[in-house]
Amino acid sequence: MARFRIDLEYEGTRYSGWQVQPNARTVQGELFGAVERALNVRQYDVQGSGRTDAGVHALCQTAHLEARTSLAPPLLRQRLNDALPADINVLGVDRAPQSFHARHDAVARTYLYQVSRRRTAFGKRFVWWVKDPLQTRPMQAAARFLVGLHDFRSFTAASEAQTRVKLEEARIDEDGDLILIRLTASHFLWKMVRQVVGVLVEVGRGRLPPQQIQTWLGTFSPEPAKLTAPPSGLFLERAWYPGEKRASDSRPLLRV
Amino acid sequence: MARFRIDLEYEGTRYSGWQVQPNARTVQGELFGAVERALNVRQYDVQGSGRTDAGVHALCQTAHLEARTSLAPPLLRQRLNDALPADINVLGVDRAPQSFHARHDAVARTYLYQVSRRRTAFGKRFVWWVKDPLQTRPMQAAARFLVGLHDFRSFTAASEAQTRVKLEEARIDEDGDLILIRLTASHFLWKMVRQVVGVLVEVGRGRLPPQQIQTWLGTFSPEPAKLTAPPSGLFLERAWYPGEKRASDSRPLLRV
Repeated sequence: MARFRIDLEYEGTRYSGWQVQPNARTVQGELFGAVERALNVRQYDVQGSGRTDAGVHALCQTAHLEARTSLAPPLLRQRLNDALPADINVLGVDRAPQSFHARHDAVARTYLYQVSRRRTAFGKRFVWWVKDPLQTRPMQAAARFLVGLHDFRSFTAASEAQTRVKLEEARIDEDGDLILIRLTASHFLWKMVRQVVGVLVEVGRGRLPPQQIQTWLGTFSPEPAKLTAPPSGLFLERAWYPGEKRASDSRPLLRV
Repeated sequence: MARFRIDLEYEGTRYSGWQVQPNARTVQGELFGAVERALNVRQYDVQGSGRTDAGVHALCQTAHLEARTSLAPPLLRQRLNDALPADINVLGVDRAPQSFHARHDAVARTYLYQVSRRRTAFGKRFVWWVKDPLQTRPMQAAARFLVGLHDFRSFTAASEAQTRVKLEEARIDEDGDLILIRLTASHFLWKMVRQVVGVLVEVGRGRLPPQQIQTWLGTFSPEPAKLTAPPSGLFLERAWYPGEKRASDSRPLLRV
């Protein structure tokens, strides 16, 4: 069996998330089908760096593929793309060591959330349009409270035992009418990014003081769940592997 | 009756073009419905600077609205947007003199065509993805032949008597994997932009010499029609009115 690293982008709108499920269209399920058709194999595995929820996109998701094939990576990439629907696109294929595991080996993930301050005819699938005026300064102040090792039990839909997460970066950039929120951590809890974004936007609206976010770190509150941001604005921007330089990207989307 | 200038953007994917038609979803038809609901009127008119075909988008289409209303322009804009589907967005509303006519008064139109040299998960609706390698230099050389007053009878699907058009600008910019083709003229013939783009891309592929375009200006050829580019990559970028400064925009799309 040969092992490959696969980097891919996808528009999540039509999918019930990454993870393969019976009777639902998922990104992993589409990859399974593409591998079967492109390589004519039945024994293979495709694992991603992590799951994305229904409607969530990826600018660069990383997966490993294990399959019996002698195809060179560029041809494998082309074959997979020919077999995939238009909203899933393999950006690159590289040979990987047998030990490479997209989920276990990833040391961090960066998520990008796009908030739009204007209605847009082209971007509905890719932004959360917030009608109320938003002030980014208090949002940035609130974001600073998030960085570091904290208990994010107020910011997840999961009833996980371990809710401590070390957030490496929480960055808020403006680009015209867009507000770009980027969070980087070794791992994220279920719905954590969307609940954090929902609270940050509430701060930007002036309905919550930035310090509120500090209060909710450690002391459980059901409020962040009620503010959960919609999936349309969320992108897995990148999974990071050992030795990769963490270059922060502040370019806006979508350059197609 | 009051008269307004309306600037709007739309994603044309779901529409059978601009022009209202029975039994078809059109942008003008959606505007009619929005005006009726937003203003609760039955007597009104909405005319655009020109038609766009099925699947063609607009970054900025200009229209005039005539209706009996005392709403201030910002509120009118909001009401219209509340009544419009998400893929049509009114960018601005201004009071206009009674004599203002969006089509008759426009002195020029600029169209943008986006060719992508890579497959993209997000951009299928907004580009023409060309798999073959494209050289922009010969495309630019071919584009220079287009500028000026020429007979474009080879570059239209219409059987119009008058096929002479003065092309003011034909500009080709690269932005990463995108090739942005912009054409400006006082008016365009039916399907002219898409046929010109189809020929330019054929030149970029190396299958036609740039001089071929010169041959087809004036001497009728059925070839450009066969090369017609798909509507997905085409945007009405702007209609120009007297006194407006013609600032060329070279920014790429889509900044949402």
